[in-house]
Amino acid sequence: MVERLGERFDREQERFVEEWKSFLRFPTVGADPTHHPDCADCAAWLRDHLAGIGLQAETLETTRLPAVYAEHRTGRDAPTILFYGHYDVQPADPIEAWTTPPFEPHLRNGRLYARGAEDNKGQLFAFLKAVELLLADHQLDLNLKIIIEGEEESGSHGLSDRLDAWQERLAADILMVADTGTVADGTPTIVMGLRGMLHLAVSLRGPSHDLHSGLHGGLALNPVSELARLLATLFAADGSIAVQGFYDGIQPPTPVERELIQRTSFDPAAYAASIGMPPVAGETRFAPLERLGFRPALDINGFSGGNAESMKTVIPATAKACLTARLAAGQDPERCLQAICDHLQAHTPEAMALTISNAGSAGPGFRIDPESAPVELARNVLTAMTGGDPVYHWEGASIPIIPALAAASGAAPLLVGFGHEDDHIHAPDESYSIAQFKRGFLYATNLLVAAARLHRDDLT
Amino acid sequence: MVERLGERFDREQERFVEEWKSFLRFPTVGADPTHHPDCADCAAWLRDHLAGIGLQAETLETTRLPAVYAEHRTGRDAPTILFYGHYDVQPADPIEAWTTPPFEPHLRNGRLYARGAEDNKGQLFAFLKAVELLLADHQLDLNLKIIIEGEEESGSHGLSDRLDAWQERLAADILMVADTGTVADGTPTIVMGLRGMLHLAVSLRGPSHDLHSGLHGGLALNPVSELARLLATLFAADGSIAVQGFYDGIQPPTPVERELIQRTSFDPAAYAASIGMPPVAGETRFAPLERLGFRPALDINGFSGGNAESMKTVIPATAKACLTARLAAGQDPERCLQAICDHLQAHTPEAMALTISNAGSAGPGFRIDPESAPVELARNVLTAMTGGDPVYHWEGASIPIIPALAAASGAAPLLVGFGHEDDHIHAPDESYSIAQFKRGFLYATNLLVAAARLHRDDLT
Repeated sequence: MVERLGERFDREQERFVEEWKSFLRFPTVGADPTHHPDCADCAAWLRDHLAGIGLQAETLETTRLPAVYAEHRTGRDAPTILFYGHYDVQPADPIEAWTTPPFEPHLRNGRLYARGAEDNKGQLFAFLKAVELLLADHQLDLNLKIIIEGEEESGSHGLSDRLDAWQERLAADILMVADTGTVADGTPTIVMGLRGMLHLAVSLRGPSHDLHSGLHGGLALNPVSELARLLATLFAADGSIAVQGFYDGIQPPTPVERELIQRTSFDPAAYAASIGMPPVAGETRFAPLERLGFRPALDINGFSGGNAESMKTVIPATAKACLTARLAAGQDPERCLQAICDHLQAHTPEAMALTISNAGSAGPGFRIDPESAPVELARNVLTAMTGGDPVYHWEGASIPIIPALAAASGAAPLLVGFGHEDDHIHAPDESYSIAQFKRGFLYATNLLVAAARLHRDDLT
Repeated sequence: MVERLGERFDREQERFVEEWKSFLRFPTVGADPTHHPDCADCAAWLRDHLAGIGLQAETLETTRLPAVYAEHRTGRDAPTILFYGHYDVQPADPIEAWTTPPFEPHLRNGRLYARGAEDNKGQLFAFLKAVELLLADHQLDLNLKIIIEGEEESGSHGLSDRLDAWQERLAADILMVADTGTVADGTPTIVMGLRGMLHLAVSLRGPSHDLHSGLHGGLALNPVSELARLLATLFAADGSIAVQGFYDGIQPPTPVERELIQRTSFDPAAYAASIGMPPVAGETRFAPLERLGFRPALDINGFSGGNAESMKTVIPATAKACLTARLAAGQDPERCLQAICDHLQAHTPEAMALTISNAGSAGPGFRIDPESAPVELARNVLTAMTGGDPVYHWEGASIPIIPALAAASGAAPLLVGFGHEDDHIHAPDESYSIAQFKRGFLYATNLLVAAARLHRDDLT
């Protein structure tokens, strides 16, 4: 079947790419309110597209950005798969660093370049094309539910708020997600856990207005200098996070997990070549793969104060920064967020005002049982597709809604995607190759066919 | 004469303000190369204006931005005054914080609002109007030389490079500068010293491209976090500067200076009210006025890295900052700059690349002998004008070229200006009141008349 499917894909490729481009042209930066109309337009386009391929489709209002829901019901008591994806994308700045504009998709050397080309529009669209083909061939012999939200990159708060109300609608056996990567391009990878996330923005106000740094330097506290000092206190000299209570509750790897990590190769030199620096950050007493999958991290994602472009001799009135932390399974996101806020407040100079905004937890970290039935199913499908055993990987990223969505739907998460470091997701010149897209399409088709052959009881 | 002069000013005020506005409309941001054509246009306008009031005027090319030179020679062996000013202004950002656009001067409530309204276009224009009046009345009975440069806000490098060549042209007895402030609005103030300055821009490069902070957080060093840590190492916990050798050579106040500082009142509560925070920065073991006038300061004037506006979960490839230090008399600017660069290099993580650019010393700090003849002359003029003794003040700002210009011209610096904290120089909504402009005009007129009565020997 794989052979035949590959040919089918090749015949349809040109159309698939044109439709994928249409999807990418919506600048769906969910974190930026000026793009909220684009998000609504994209959700409507997606609903129509899903209806067009033969699903029952609708847009669902959330408390924030709309989600798109679609389903297919088979006549029998077959397994139900809930597919989750997101149509929102990261901001595209710095725009000037893009070779072609981020929302004008451009195909070159077999790769499609655009913001969202991979994350997550490309990956989810490959899944949709698999569904389209199976529906056209009357081969989709299970129950399929699709939920595509617009706030994955900004905390999934809108969908989160609706999960209680939508529990019945979303009930399923397997929660399929195509929003992860592979340890090497072409190496099938099952992601066995993701880190949780919390986010906050901090602003430090000093003087009531920008001051001349000569007339006030040495008297007036400088918000830029003080914010640098304040943020530096979050980190200990050994690379760990110096916030009291932050590490509480972390679940160390189980013996099975530890064996699987040790089986996964990590080449520091290859890593350094791919990102331009060696893996020397964080708690270096843990091996890199353990640090990434089983330990938290705290990053200042942005800092801005005064004028860093040209010489301007002021003490600016304010400085601000955005921070996110990635959380290991077992850490309580709300408690971690509170601990960071308390630390920042405690270290703020008395003469200054600290404002914390957009503070929230997007969800906890989680891990998947390597011996669970959906993982076994995916392993068999990937082995049949590629002839080799897939790698089990704890990749460090977050899909904030997954634990809550798994709980609400009663479904076991199954994370298989075909992204790769070269895709530069979240960065300028994001891209996804036709080859990766095709792998996603083939995997999804085979997985859906294989899952239809199982009995629901096999999945528990 | 003051009375009569005041009436003259009032009659001419409307025309003066219109001309002052024309001067302010040139967006002469010397630090920004895109504004260099505006600087050249402004220099040409200024040359024509000076010629129009009866001076021999020309623009002089420097190695960078042009300077404007004008002179008036009297027939006799009278004192020679060299007046120094600058037509360049600070950058106007943040533009959105201005009530009216920075380069569209707007008069309201007796104040003219524009970038440069005070610093230095307003102050120097009041001097030029005094010269115009004296020339029209054939009362300018001394030798006057005027040099107005375009790089005061970015280090005066162009003029500096020319000083050796222009030594004869600039030779004078008194170096008059109208680019300083008053300790309180309306309190005549003679500035007795200025701090020197050095400047540098730093950029920290980490990964070769922006990274997804989930896929790399805890492995890849974050340039924003590391730059915050690196810059924080410049400061000790007690508020002093933690750079080895930085404080070397500082000249403490002389007994006469110490007595004068102690006579100057400094009200921490009034200071706090005027800038919105108490004077708690820096080396707090020194009294505020000593800290400002006799001790150095180091400020991060700008910091930028990643996206601080909205949630963007990246580890950016680079982060950058601009810094300036104000130097006390006795500190060697080049050595201080080297000490800071060495410190930054030594504290940069091995896996990252630090680039230092725009590093330079704009000039050393200096102090003026409180008992010198030009100071005595100004004291007499200000006392006659206002009926009270002027305050002697060490204000903390820098006019980088002054020590070198004093040395090249052989003239003794005399710093009297009428700026005030409320003018918000270097900040949004910079303004200068008609009342302040008038004081500058009256002082200049009286000073030029009084100086003409002296013999050159009285001034040494």
